[in-house]
Amino acid sequence: MLDYSPALMTDMYEYTMLDAALRDGTADRRCVFEVYTRHLPEGRRYGVAAGAGRILEALRDFHLSDEDLRFLADRKVVSPQTVKWLEHYRFSGSIKGYREGEMFFPNSPILQVEGTFGECTLLETLILSILNYDSAVASAASRMVSAAKDRPCMDMGGRRTNEWAAVAAARAAVVGGFQGTANLLAAQLYGLKAIGTAAHCFTLVHDSERQAFESQIAALGRNTTLLVDTYNIEEAVRTAVEVAGPQLGGVRIDSGDLASLAQRVRNQLDALGATGTKITVTNDLDEYAIAALQTAPVDSYGVGTMLVTGSGAPTCAMVYKLTEREGADGTMVPVMKKSKDKATVPGRKLAFRSYEYNLADAEHVISGSEEALAAYRPQEGWKDLLVEYVDHGQADPQWTGHEAIARAHAYRAQALAELPITAQSLMKGDPVIPTETEVL
Amino acid sequence: MLDYSPALMTDMYEYTMLDAALRDGTADRRCVFEVYTRHLPEGRRYGVAAGAGRILEALRDFHLSDEDLRFLADRKVVSPQTVKWLEHYRFSGSIKGYREGEMFFPNSPILQVEGTFGECTLLETLILSILNYDSAVASAASRMVSAAKDRPCMDMGGRRTNEWAAVAAARAAVVGGFQGTANLLAAQLYGLKAIGTAAHCFTLVHDSERQAFESQIAALGRNTTLLVDTYNIEEAVRTAVEVAGPQLGGVRIDSGDLASLAQRVRNQLDALGATGTKITVTNDLDEYAIAALQTAPVDSYGVGTMLVTGSGAPTCAMVYKLTEREGADGTMVPVMKKSKDKATVPGRKLAFRSYEYNLADAEHVISGSEEALAAYRPQEGWKDLLVEYVDHGQADPQWTGHEAIARAHAYRAQALAELPITAQSLMKGDPVIPTETEVL
Repeated sequence: MLDYSPALMTDMYEYTMLDAALRDGTADRRCVFEVYTRHLPEGRRYGVAAGAGRILEALRDFHLSDEDLRFLADRKVVSPQTVKWLEHYRFSGSIKGYREGEMFFPNSPILQVEGTFGECTLLETLILSILNYDSAVASAASRMVSAAKDRPCMDMGGRRTNEWAAVAAARAAVVGGFQGTANLLAAQLYGLKAIGTAAHCFTLVHDSERQAFESQIAALGRNTTLLVDTYNIEEAVRTAVEVAGPQLGGVRIDSGDLASLAQRVRNQLDALGATGTKITVTNDLDEYAIAALQTAPVDSYGVGTMLVTGSGAPTCAMVYKLTEREGADGTMVPVMKKSKDKATVPGRKLAFRSYEYNLADAEHVISGSEEALAAYRPQEGWKDLLVEYVDHGQADPQWTGHEAIARAHAYRAQALAELPITAQSLMKGDPVIPTETEVL
Repeated sequence: MLDYSPALMTDMYEYTMLDAALRDGTADRRCVFEVYTRHLPEGRRYGVAAGAGRILEALRDFHLSDEDLRFLADRKVVSPQTVKWLEHYRFSGSIKGYREGEMFFPNSPILQVEGTFGECTLLETLILSILNYDSAVASAASRMVSAAKDRPCMDMGGRRTNEWAAVAAARAAVVGGFQGTANLLAAQLYGLKAIGTAAHCFTLVHDSERQAFESQIAALGRNTTLLVDTYNIEEAVRTAVEVAGPQLGGVRIDSGDLASLAQRVRNQLDALGATGTKITVTNDLDEYAIAALQTAPVDSYGVGTMLVTGSGAPTCAMVYKLTEREGADGTMVPVMKKSKDKATVPGRKLAFRSYEYNLADAEHVISGSEEALAAYRPQEGWKDLLVEYVDHGQADPQWTGHEAIARAHAYRAQALAELPITAQSLMKGDPVIPTETEVL
């Protein structure tokens, strides 16, 4: 059985930096780290934030076991003094950030982590892993859901990504607008709707397609979805309706030209009286393929590879950067690196979205000292994009658990509807609203 | 703490198919399933198989807890009779396949799983998840290692992929030729070399770059690698050598034009007498960027995003297909589906690689009945590509554990050297040797 805390899901340098900072005293300096991306994937109009709830769950479990501590000591990753410090490690800082399901743009401060340097540094790798992957999947999912209009999209991609990534992908897909997943562990952990049909091997292991269909209906009832493209689709549809009757729940097509096949199968089902039988299609679908099927008589989409790999953008390129820290005199000092093409905007941030005629007009990122930001008053009607996830070590329970996922799912639809309609265009273009950074 | 077996890291339909097959008796039919890919990513000359050792570890843990069984029963995924069957589930079949580190091509039978339909079906999703992701990373890693020639490549990509995928990626990277990883859990679980430098935040949290360098050297010694591009690289290099002396282990550059910066930093280090100080570069490297740095005075590469996302090919598109099964009369029957563009070659397979002048010439995939294959004699000098991983439920221990990874690492280098040299070209092209399928 797997039995690991997330505490070692971390780059070694987080621990060696902690070790050095504990020796020289900077580990106790108050710091603000911020997560953002410098750009969206090429041509994308927006991204969808996802993963914050998983970060809160990981934080809860983020402590080092005796075995972990021995490993760090044996490998001399850190000194014995640091091992002692780590024995009692619990994140006691605060975290704000974008809601799951919220749209983000380049330089949106998606997560803001405040605490001592030591405790914040240890979280960098894990926070980025979760946000980068989950948001990549949610962003791809959202585009697919837009292309699918009112037809449900289902995650069937687990086999095309790492086995744990598959579980996270299912959750992120639902945040991004999907209705369910084939992945059972995701359904169990996150209370998601589990869906499924049958594989070609099930037909092949039987002596005839008819026997396979009879068996599936005996086990799962007439409302099941039969896979009809193992041999000859027309024969399979005829057999399916003979075996199940016109109450057959659905058929799945997994190969060939889906648009023309769906039309032929629909005609055939209707002629056989199976007017209520649904058609599910699968076969390397992405948002473009789904859009191309808008006029085909398809009832739902099963999406695999392109969902779990972010449809060409498997990561969001989010980074975790120190923007403010305590100085030797105890006051907070905005800081920035000046690396070529990678310079950062110093100071902690506020983030608001302004609207015109009820549609988003701009993302306003306001940067400054703690005092300047405390005095800042946004214009009326601007939406404050940062919610409080953790307050001095206490996570707000509303952002974890099954209901939080359902709320994020609903929130995404609402927030997307408030963007200009070009956000939903699949044509390549710039971010649909600009990010305007103001330094106070 | 995480505490899940891999048994639910599975698409629901594997369980519903099992349920139906147990009712109708086909669950007990002997079956052969095979894993292969229909094509390599566009332009790639070969792929590198990875993940088999992880499959064996997952198999060891693949059993359902009481909670899992309750979940399957409560959600009515399977019948009470199937829950009973699952209580005692242990894979009792046999598995053969390509070695980790072995090159593969379209239609190479990368894994062959033999057992009853019921027990083999349950493994489909998990086996594909592991092989698809691990092989994607190993395949990308191998191209990067070729481009790097004798300079070591290190995995620093954990933050750009799912947190568990990061652990698998580190292992797969080493199979693919990398020397180490920043990921501590991967280092712990797989006995890998852990590496690391420092982040920009470490410099920024200090009152000066000099203090940051002094602190890092106090903690990690002069042999450490200092990050020199937070502010001004030239000043940073001067400070670094002042603080550490010419024995400084290394410097890291993470931004800008790496080729020209590496040359300037090398010149500066040499002028300061730090002729032994190494230069590590990082900054969204892929195999092409690494190749472009071949003449730059770089000593090692830290690779992130493009490694863990398979350098444009985050999955291998491997599938798990039934190719032979027991018939009603007890004899084995080759089977195939006829789906458009997705037809399968019936019958279990043998796989050999033939050589000419000590270089690989073709991949020979021989398909046929059990008897025909037993009588088949390959030509002299052909390499048998299938090794035995599991024999009637007993996994061969030589393919798991730390040493298996080291052996796979060495094997990849040897197997790649036996391919025509064009395999290592980064120019787009066809698979470097053809796969010739013969049906007996």
